[in-house]
Amino acid sequence: MSRDVARSDAHASRRGGKELATTSVLQVLLEQSTAPGVISFALGLPASESIPRDEIGAAAQRILRNDTDALQYGPPSLALRRHIVRLMKDRGVDCHEGQVFITAGAQQGMNLITRLLLRPGCAIVTEEYVYPGFQQAVQYSAPRYCTVPTESDGIDVDSVEVAVRTHKPALVYVMPDGHNPLGVTMSRSKRERLIEISRAYEVPIVEDDVYGFLTYQVRPESSLRSMGSERVFYVSSFSKILAPAARVGWVVAPEHMMPTLSALKEAMDIDTATFMQRVVASVLDTDLWSTQLVRTKRIHQARRDTMMAALDAHWSGYGRWSRPNSGLFVWLELDPATDTTELLRRALEECHVAFVPAEAFCVPGGPRHRSGLRLNFSRATDSSIHEGISRLARLAANTCGT
Amino acid sequence: MSRDVARSDAHASRRGGKELATTSVLQVLLEQSTAPGVISFALGLPASESIPRDEIGAAAQRILRNDTDALQYGPPSLALRRHIVRLMKDRGVDCHEGQVFITAGAQQGMNLITRLLLRPGCAIVTEEYVYPGFQQAVQYSAPRYCTVPTESDGIDVDSVEVAVRTHKPALVYVMPDGHNPLGVTMSRSKRERLIEISRAYEVPIVEDDVYGFLTYQVRPESSLRSMGSERVFYVSSFSKILAPAARVGWVVAPEHMMPTLSALKEAMDIDTATFMQRVVASVLDTDLWSTQLVRTKRIHQARRDTMMAALDAHWSGYGRWSRPNSGLFVWLELDPATDTTELLRRALEECHVAFVPAEAFCVPGGPRHRSGLRLNFSRATDSSIHEGISRLARLAANTCGT
Repeated sequence: MSRDVARSDAHASRRGGKELATTSVLQVLLEQSTAPGVISFALGLPASESIPRDEIGAAAQRILRNDTDALQYGPPSLALRRHIVRLMKDRGVDCHEGQVFITAGAQQGMNLITRLLLRPGCAIVTEEYVYPGFQQAVQYSAPRYCTVPTESDGIDVDSVEVAVRTHKPALVYVMPDGHNPLGVTMSRSKRERLIEISRAYEVPIVEDDVYGFLTYQVRPESSLRSMGSERVFYVSSFSKILAPAARVGWVVAPEHMMPTLSALKEAMDIDTATFMQRVVASVLDTDLWSTQLVRTKRIHQARRDTMMAALDAHWSGYGRWSRPNSGLFVWLELDPATDTTELLRRALEECHVAFVPAEAFCVPGGPRHRSGLRLNFSRATDSSIHEGISRLARLAANTCGT
Repeated sequence: MSRDVARSDAHASRRGGKELATTSVLQVLLEQSTAPGVISFALGLPASESIPRDEIGAAAQRILRNDTDALQYGPPSLALRRHIVRLMKDRGVDCHEGQVFITAGAQQGMNLITRLLLRPGCAIVTEEYVYPGFQQAVQYSAPRYCTVPTESDGIDVDSVEVAVRTHKPALVYVMPDGHNPLGVTMSRSKRERLIEISRAYEVPIVEDDVYGFLTYQVRPESSLRSMGSERVFYVSSFSKILAPAARVGWVVAPEHMMPTLSALKEAMDIDTATFMQRVVASVLDTDLWSTQLVRTKRIHQARRDTMMAALDAHWSGYGRWSRPNSGLFVWLELDPATDTTELLRRALEECHVAFVPAEAFCVPGGPRHRSGLRLNFSRATDSSIHEGISRLARLAANTCGT
């Protein structure tokens, strides 16, 4: 789930209340990130060359030629749900069409799932750094965030257990693969432990798996949903692996919840995006999928490697960064005294480089981290990655005095 | 705003609480309405032959050929908002791009607008018969409905004034053109009075104008929004005049509310349906619009005339019905002793005809009307309209004993 992070992060952080002034500054800064001439590592868009435009165009023509009701109101596409059932096997999940709910992207999936699970004022367990889109999705119910730290192999599961036992949350939100913003992958043993906790305390887990198909590992971990718990609500989308503008995502959830999900979605937007659902199903009817997966992974992995090389070349000796096994983001941790919101202001002004500072991912009531920043590697060219990272390193060296 | 009425009405009426048993019956009946072999006047779909499939296909190809970012995340289309500003002149409205907010259909528009205006437990003023999609949109805040009657020239404005004065509602919801389900058009004088009330009591009006462009009058009335009040929140969509599956609608609202609308929509679905917005804008770049309007009105008006002729031929002497000047629906009022939910059960079983009974449009706490029914005329062929209306008349004659 990416998006125009500039806007979403800004909205997300508006919530801070007493941080209002700072937040306004952040919002303005992130809007400036999209200005022409800025080398931006701020947004979360997949590489445009990974989008199979011709194939989607051909599918659109097939649908319009052969399907007279393609532009009418219509029920969610069964053909698409069948394809999703098949794709889910790649994530280790054995499900059936009755458990698949089609959404307008993963953001809507999270919005619907959390509406199902949350009650006003309830507690939720999240990491300290949380994707702003999730924060937006739950904002309406003003949940009490109980945050736990994240380690290099994923969320701190011991802390999760303590938080679950203590606060009896309505859900635990995790992003086991391609963590946004931290870029970490959850280890197998932590996944197993999370499932145990979910079972023992009967607490639902929302698994945000938008980057699960975009893994650079030879043997990716299976999704939490595959580990057998009916309490895992799985959310993903075609945005990162086909096209964001398709606005087609999905949820895997217990079948008995489908009528409620359906009623909630109807109230939002009627639930009849017949055309794009059929287009995506038609793309999946072809043999494009496996080649598309290979292609999009190759493109993004190459970008990641370029970013890693640029960081090695320019940042060696100061700063620490993750080496993401999936997804689109690297997390760069600077000297603890650094304020990356202030660094962003200077980066835009002095060297025309943009990123998203730690502040944008902090949740209401959680720790206010300031010394890290998120770098997206999927949208910039190789040369602009080197140039941007080098400029940023020079600025940080001056600023942080390291 | 139509939709799979079978599903939405069922959901809408679930809310009744103590009517739960009846509601379940209604839900089952409405689902049966879509069964093969049933002549259905139940749904609210525009005539499929009115959808300009070839032109939309050509626009999709133009966009995919010329616009490399058409399938990426992206901001709402400015070109589309400019077109909407132009189209709004047909509804008498002088607005600018900064007041136009693009939505995933009118349903999302109503959902967003009501989220903006309602607080939990507040009062709202509606008619006694309310489009179920609106009821769904506001359900989350469980508003207190203050209902007023509707006359042949629209909502009873004297009762509106009393209700507004007494209950200080958060909004008044109206559908001045092509009323769903009653098929009436609001008179000019009532529109003016409503605007006066809105000004005098500072109460917002939500104007649902999805059928405003689909008028069969030579001189249609101007929309409420055109009458100068900044308190009118206008909602419409391309669903009825281009294609439902485009999922492109819009809201006209005060400019200062746009950032909040944007944040609310982002939380729902990220707000980046770049592709279909660009496709619709590209269709509007051509000279299709005016011919499309003429064509779609002609098709629907002919269906309305067939329905009128069928009612004259088969129902003369019992029952009363509206002659709609816009929209897709006729309201048929039977003998007060008739229960149209029961009539639907028998119609499905005995003569394979479907409609939506009055009960589906009644709101929580409002009068529980049972003796009317809604007939859609846009989806059936001329011969099936005659056949269905004739079968229904025979059944009703037996049932009602008139």
